Amino acid sequence: MQTELSRRLGIEHAIFGFTPFPAVAAAISRAGGFGVLGAVRYSAPDELARDLDWMQEHVDGRPYGLDVVMPAKKVEGVSEADVEAMIPEGHRQFVRDVLAKHGVPEPAEGEASGWRITGWMEQVARSQLDVAFDYPIKLLANALGSPPADVIRRAHDRDVLVAALAGSARHARKHAEAGIDIVVAQGYEAGGHTGEIASMVLTPEAVDAVTPLPVLAAGGIGSGRQIAAALALGAQGVWLGSLWLTTTEADLHSPALTRKLLAAGSGDTVRSRALTGKPARQLRTEWTEAWDDPQGPGALPMPLQGLLVADAVSRIQKYEVQELLGTPVGQIVGRMTSERAVQDVFDDLTRGFERAVDRVNRIAGRGRHA
Amino acid sequence: MQTELSRRLGIEHAIFGFTPFPAVAAAISRAGGFGVLGAVRYSAPDELARDLDWMQEHVDGRPYGLDVVMPAKKVEGVSEADVEAMIPEGHRQFVRDVLAKHGVPEPAEGEASGWRITGWMEQVARSQLDVAFDYPIKLLANALGSPPADVIRRAHDRDVLVAALAGSARHARKHAEAGIDIVVAQGYEAGGHTGEIASMVLTPEAVDAVTPLPVLAAGGIGSGRQIAAALALGAQGVWLGSLWLTTTEADLHSPALTRKLLAAGSGDTVRSRALTGKPARQLRTEWTEAWDDPQGPGALPMPLQGLLVADAVSRIQKYEVQELLGTPVGQIVGRMTSERAVQDVFDDLTRGFERAVDRVNRIAGRGRHA
Repeated sequence: MQTELSRRLGIEHAIFGFTPFPAVAAAISRAGGFGVLGAVRYSAPDELARDLDWMQEHVDGRPYGLDVVMPAKKVEGVSEADVEAMIPEGHRQFVRDVLAKHGVPEPAEGEASGWRITGWMEQVARSQLDVAFDYPIKLLANALGSPPADVIRRAHDRDVLVAALAGSARHARKHAEAGIDIVVAQGYEAGGHTGEIASMVLTPEAVDAVTPLPVLAAGGIGSGRQIAAALALGAQGVWLGSLWLTTTEADLHSPALTRKLLAAGSGDTVRSRALTGKPARQLRTEWTEAWDDPQGPGALPMPLQGLLVADAVSRIQKYEVQELLGTPVGQIVGRMTSERAVQDVFDDLTRGFERAVDRVNRIAGRGRHA
Repeated sequence: MQTELSRRLGIEHAIFGFTPFPAVAAAISRAGGFGVLGAVRYSAPDELARDLDWMQEHVDGRPYGLDVVMPAKKVEGVSEADVEAMIPEGHRQFVRDVLAKHGVPEPAEGEASGWRITGWMEQVARSQLDVAFDYPIKLLANALGSPPADVIRRAHDRDVLVAALAGSARHARKHAEAGIDIVVAQGYEAGGHTGEIASMVLTPEAVDAVTPLPVLAAGGIGSGRQIAAALALGAQGVWLGSLWLTTTEADLHSPALTRKLLAAGSGDTVRSRALTGKPARQLRTEWTEAWDDPQGPGALPMPLQGLLVADAVSRIQKYEVQELLGTPVGQIVGRMTSERAVQDVFDDLTRGFERAVDRVNRIAGRGRHA
């Protein structure tokens, strides 16, 4: 499965795997794809360095990348405390009420939150980059649009390709104008932040908007048939995130959450502002229902909502409170029905792709299949 | 573009075109696809007979089908007047207020509504079938799930295949159990009534749920690339509706509406209950915004909403009230940028499909393209 982009990056298959777990990212690269480590959960630069050291030892010399969450617009001199101060007390009370209603235990005295969103603050993302550029990463992806111009320059100086997520052809065009190298077209069905245009429509629109820049299709892809479909739509590769969450190398720190993911169907996700303040697809839970309820206070804008709910989400995950427990994941969750090794999942993708190509050739009356 | 289903129906390309316009349906069949005439707007059986006579003369002997909107569950002894009586006065007033706000002229004395939804009443759909079975139709599609068992039997006695729309794998399985022959998997991005699962995810789920029954992919398809993608996903053909609305053979009776469709982008539609009471994708207008406004009364359930708004929608269309003027259409509306003949559109689809197959073969390293 070779495209111009896969050849440029020196990978065997144009399959990009986004994951917060170094073991998963390394396994994707070793399998012949391109592993992209999500940095948003690293608040301390030395933790990121430690995991990149580990990656470096476990990718067998294969290329890999890093995904950060960096706003293109700088907000000067605003601290986390300033942002915290903007959160209305009524919203804080609503969080306490929802947690109390579901019997979520209080955190132990002095216990730190295990789930922070500080990676979304530009300062934190920049300190992550200072670390990452010491490693031979080949790709830097940004989940919040184009990175700032100086970051793009810094990446290009090191021969690092820059990718940015886009939910519309207009976003894709803006990224191209900002000088990025790859557009990740994130369809409505994708996990995490998404727009409303589905991959079937978005992928070719993004391709037509930025050609000759390569587009990766993201959203709804978790089988070889879907990879073949995305490539038929004009993508130069696919970007998969959800599918790896239930691999044996993933470490969700919650068996109950893994069970929920394995049991969920494609209709069990919702595009909700509950987690970050921007619409992000995730498992539908009592938590998302509470924030999406027109009778409730509703989610705050980004970044307020993320700060508001950080501790609560951490407690829900730690105590595995079944009805509130969720995670960003796409509609492809319906395909994730057993825990399997990354290599097994990857082999299924490449074999399924070959079968799908056979099928399309039969229908088109081509070659040995005609 | 040949699948088992296209061979069974004796058509050249596995492209099914749904349209309310006989001239469009006939042109699709003549072009080598399969034209399906939507019957919902016919309230008088003799009008349908007149248009089927016309179709019969203009399809050059090619096969075609009919689409009805028939509820699987019978509601005995309920007349249109009974249903009308269930509409709250507050909702009627809201309709009057919205129309007045936008200066929609009153209908002339004694003028009949040009837009009725009586085709959704089972009695009307059954009288349509009495007409249709006198013609050599090859397919009967139902937009509201499986038709009643006696209708399926009647169709099968006449060698008419029965198709039913499904928005989830569960729906698809229910249709298969009801004895239908073809599942039309209607993705989130489709025009008209849709669920929340996007085509990229829904198509293979529906295929896996009902194999060996054939699945047609609907939603988001308006180019050869998208057809190749749908077939890679496992569909035995594609079902296109929106794309024909701006063909020269279509007769929307409103140049302003045609201009709106040509100007709209993929982000200019919304899944709204404004028109029928069930979520249906359509152009986003001040009309849909009014019904989707949490401050407003909200849409009534089907079939009340359809009856409530019938006259209003008719007046909006007749007087071409720009900001209220809309129509069911899918996200593919962004691709509809010029008025063209059905044959031209069709040729683009088949040529684009061949190019997409070339592309996928190049990526897979197959055949003459490797």
